Amino acid sequence: MPQYQAPMRDIKFVLDDLLNAEQHYAKIPGRETVTPDLLHAILGEAAKFCEGVLSPIDLSGDQEGCTWSEDGVKTPKGFKEAYDAYVEGGWPAMTAGEAVGGQNLPTSIGLLVNELVGSANWAWSMYPGLSGAAARLIETMGTEFQKERYLPKMVSGEWGGTMCLTESHCGSDLGMLRTKAAPQADGSYKITGTKIFISGGEHDLTENIIHLVIARCEGAPDGTGGISLFVVPKFMANEDGSVGERNGVSCGSIEHKMGIHGNATCVMNFDGATGYLVGKENEGLRNMFFMMNAARMGTAIQGLSEGELAYQGALTYARERLQMRSLSGPKNPDGPADPIIVHPDVRRMLLTQKSLVEGSRAFLYWVAQILDNSFYQESEEAKEAEALLEFLTPIAKAFVTEAGLEVANIGVQVYGGHGYVKEWGMEKIIRDARIATVYEGTTGIQALDLLGRKVMGTGGKSLALFTKQVHKFCQANAENEALAEFIKPLAELNKEWGELTGRIGEKAMQNADEVGAASVDYLMYSGYVVLAFMWARMAAVAAEGGDDAFLAAKLKTARFYYERILPRTVSHKLAMESGADNLMDLEEEAFLF
Amino acid sequence: MPQYQAPMRDIKFVLDDLLNAEQHYAKIPGRETVTPDLLHAILGEAAKFCEGVLSPIDLSGDQEGCTWSEDGVKTPKGFKEAYDAYVEGGWPAMTAGEAVGGQNLPTSIGLLVNELVGSANWAWSMYPGLSGAAARLIETMGTEFQKERYLPKMVSGEWGGTMCLTESHCGSDLGMLRTKAAPQADGSYKITGTKIFISGGEHDLTENIIHLVIARCEGAPDGTGGISLFVVPKFMANEDGSVGERNGVSCGSIEHKMGIHGNATCVMNFDGATGYLVGKENEGLRNMFFMMNAARMGTAIQGLSEGELAYQGALTYARERLQMRSLSGPKNPDGPADPIIVHPDVRRMLLTQKSLVEGSRAFLYWVAQILDNSFYQESEEAKEAEALLEFLTPIAKAFVTEAGLEVANIGVQVYGGHGYVKEWGMEKIIRDARIATVYEGTTGIQALDLLGRKVMGTGGKSLALFTKQVHKFCQANAENEALAEFIKPLAELNKEWGELTGRIGEKAMQNADEVGAASVDYLMYSGYVVLAFMWARMAAVAAEGGDDAFLAAKLKTARFYYERILPRTVSHKLAMESGADNLMDLEEEAFLF
Repeated sequence: MPQYQAPMRDIKFVLDDLLNAEQHYAKIPGRETVTPDLLHAILGEAAKFCEGVLSPIDLSGDQEGCTWSEDGVKTPKGFKEAYDAYVEGGWPAMTAGEAVGGQNLPTSIGLLVNELVGSANWAWSMYPGLSGAAARLIETMGTEFQKERYLPKMVSGEWGGTMCLTESHCGSDLGMLRTKAAPQADGSYKITGTKIFISGGEHDLTENIIHLVIARCEGAPDGTGGISLFVVPKFMANEDGSVGERNGVSCGSIEHKMGIHGNATCVMNFDGATGYLVGKENEGLRNMFFMMNAARMGTAIQGLSEGELAYQGALTYARERLQMRSLSGPKNPDGPADPIIVHPDVRRMLLTQKSLVEGSRAFLYWVAQILDNSFYQESEEAKEAEALLEFLTPIAKAFVTEAGLEVANIGVQVYGGHGYVKEWGMEKIIRDARIATVYEGTTGIQALDLLGRKVMGTGGKSLALFTKQVHKFCQANAENEALAEFIKPLAELNKEWGELTGRIGEKAMQNADEVGAASVDYLMYSGYVVLAFMWARMAAVAAEGGDDAFLAAKLKTARFYYERILPRTVSHKLAMESGADNLMDLEEEAFLF
Repeated sequence: MPQYQAPMRDIKFVLDDLLNAEQHYAKIPGRETVTPDLLHAILGEAAKFCEGVLSPIDLSGDQEGCTWSEDGVKTPKGFKEAYDAYVEGGWPAMTAGEAVGGQNLPTSIGLLVNELVGSANWAWSMYPGLSGAAARLIETMGTEFQKERYLPKMVSGEWGGTMCLTESHCGSDLGMLRTKAAPQADGSYKITGTKIFISGGEHDLTENIIHLVIARCEGAPDGTGGISLFVVPKFMANEDGSVGERNGVSCGSIEHKMGIHGNATCVMNFDGATGYLVGKENEGLRNMFFMMNAARMGTAIQGLSEGELAYQGALTYARERLQMRSLSGPKNPDGPADPIIVHPDVRRMLLTQKSLVEGSRAFLYWVAQILDNSFYQESEEAKEAEALLEFLTPIAKAFVTEAGLEVANIGVQVYGGHGYVKEWGMEKIIRDARIATVYEGTTGIQALDLLGRKVMGTGGKSLALFTKQVHKFCQANAENEALAEFIKPLAELNKEWGELTGRIGEKAMQNADEVGAASVDYLMYSGYVVLAFMWARMAAVAAEGGDDAFLAAKLKTARFYYERILPRTVSHKLAMESGADNLMDLEEEAFLF
């Protein structure tokens, strides 16, 4: 199985050389103390924990899986001990505010750590990941009572948390949900209904679990405007912080899934459970979606994490496995055959992985900084960051998870038949990565959000925020001969992107289906252009760096990306420009033939 | 789970209207009796068996899997009963010659039936599939003794068969194999060594299993020129056809795999086992590869089979699942939401599936006819069929399995979260389909075979055999306005393909790595062009067919393929033309950063 090693050299390149993390953190009010030394120390400690504690229980966790009984859900061997060590290390409190017992570190640092934790053990990482998201929501919009009673133990990691949205008949379309909330005399509500696909809905890692549940109050309007958000604890909390009586919440069963076996995906039954309203009635979806950008970034990280792991595994194997001779003469003449990394097509596979993974890392770390800027500042700059974030988030979520799945598939392909066998751990990466393009909004949903809401909905302004940056970058480097191979195609694509968008917009005025018909190709096109921007920026840094072997490799990988991956934009462009008719003309019954 | 229904309407269209099966079979010496009525009757019976017997034990077979013990390997519940019924029905004898007790049906019919069997239960289908391949090899090149002693019960299906090639240190590179064969005084050999990844190496379906094993005779030359082929029975056969004493063959363990759980993938230990030489010493690989085109076609069928199943599942769900409203107005105003098939992007996914599956079916059925022609005829036409088959087979194997994997992935995507849960059966299709791009030669190996051996190795003649046909077709339809949207791009691609090939050939003269660097993109490009040819041919038939709804759907699906899928050729062209430097320039150590 892949022995995970945190890719510290590349992470430091992105943070220090590409994104100037020092300056970034120095500008965030209240977080100026994040020096490069502190940042490196945090990541170094995280790497140690991930390599030493989480990675060794990754494959065994997949094989054992979670088990359900009337008494609750048992996580795989070692998960509880690892979780206790994580709490002991103070990791859950990292990005929470000081007022609620947190360490007040910026959100971006949580995402950086998530990459490492996720590569080492994605299934495990979802328990603290969702708990942290729930805690952040209560911290941001909870009542004083909710914050005092529930937040401290969530921030410390002693209690877990979940997000309960999906019901069996509604996933993408939450307006249809049926779970009910009945107001009580004491201001609380009784919640009744069944939620499915609840990650970490029940487990043995924490003594209590705090659910965030969306439900419909009696008499609420139909659709998404009639949804309210509630805090529903598994056990009621006593005033002294101890666990009180059991609430009417139970786990009916756990799903048997393709992957992420170590994470319990629960059917949760709410049977008149006591809940506390968060925000106002009927504003629940809006409030839940307030956290959606961060949640989607958390899922985007999965694409990066799984991709990194698959690349590491494939590379190790490609250097060890001896099979056939190089067509241009033996490279390992004393051995019985050459290592397969000498073969051009194996290199094509590895470089596809490398360029997508490193490009995704640069992209996501950059978006993490924009997320910081939108969170912590109150200024024109923050508003612009918010708008740019809105634009980039669906691309990050959908494109990076699609790329991660491709990279995971290549991992198996490099191993050949051995990749298909469980003991090597490569097929598990596909099974784990496969959910990432589905949950937190499918690729199709992200694409509609991008093209319909973000681009068309702002009359193209959000796209312009991005293309303006690319334009500026291209102008600043227009005279740099060393970068010409990147700047020229990037500038052309940047221009083409705007024109394409305009043409789709015109067609969409005539026919609303044109947006949906173009959306996924538009999103993938966007993702490749965004990564081209990141690779050009990395190349610009590398070109200035002199004789360093790491920087030379960056330049060559950038070249590979531009010559071998970026041409995919052409197919996506042609497909999206073909219009809606070729999708809508076929009668439903004619699909059946 | 998907309730499989054999797609008889489309199969008949391809056989009767597109490929003129009546005329095809009428021309095959000794097989003229295959009338359309007989063909339809065979496929109808196969459909009944697949829908009624094999499909119901598909998902349960995946969940139960095979179990190993000292006494042998147990297949999942129902597999033995289904196998007995299959033997009872005479299916194993279908394509074997009359001289050995077979029904003398052409090979192509075996492949057609395999599509249905494979969609219904791929894991199960591999037992008779490999047995049949082994029987065919003995029938073609075995000694009289081998044919008399082993073949009758293999042909009847009472005994199984395997192909034992891979060892743990060699898969693609069989020249490295270590299994030894020591000649005995009685003309037999003692075989000693360990083989891995042996599909159906041990199971409880048949009372005996006849292994075809490649091994190295003492003193044989190194490499592929020192490999010999042997018949090695699990139990020795008595002269009266009964089972004799146990041979020195045993199953050491079975692999735990990503999918095809119902098929036992065995580690086989040969411990001085008695074997009988097939053909001459040191010609074993050539003899084994004599069957390779048929074996690769058998694997290509998997891409089609899994794709068909994934499409059926996704279509059913897309018509039932209610979620959100069409952007162009409600289509199911009395329901709580519209079925998701109204959404353009869901249609894009379904049409991608449909166009790849139906295109693959037309392609593979056509190649199956060419295979017939190369097998059964002794003429110039047969020689040309053989050359065309050599060219098309790696495309069929690699492209159709890659397409099948894409279609399987879309199946899960259409289901959203439900697709990730085992009970729906959609994630299983990905797990089963994932091996198809690996075994019987990976996509990379097929691509080297295509571009290196078949195209460059014939100085482009094999490609010209194909492009000539396309050219003729385009000329014949040049004046047909109804087909202009297909003929024009097809003719252009056909021309471009030759030019591209010439340019790669020129570069390859300077640098042998240019072939490997272009190979997989070249293969995928070729696959899309071949499917474009098939879709244009189908469109030509459909355009003449008048007012039939099925034919109208064919035309619309052809249009979708040309407008939305065929543009992928452009990306592959740009990638392959970028040359080998962007792959070979990066030092091996630099991949590690």
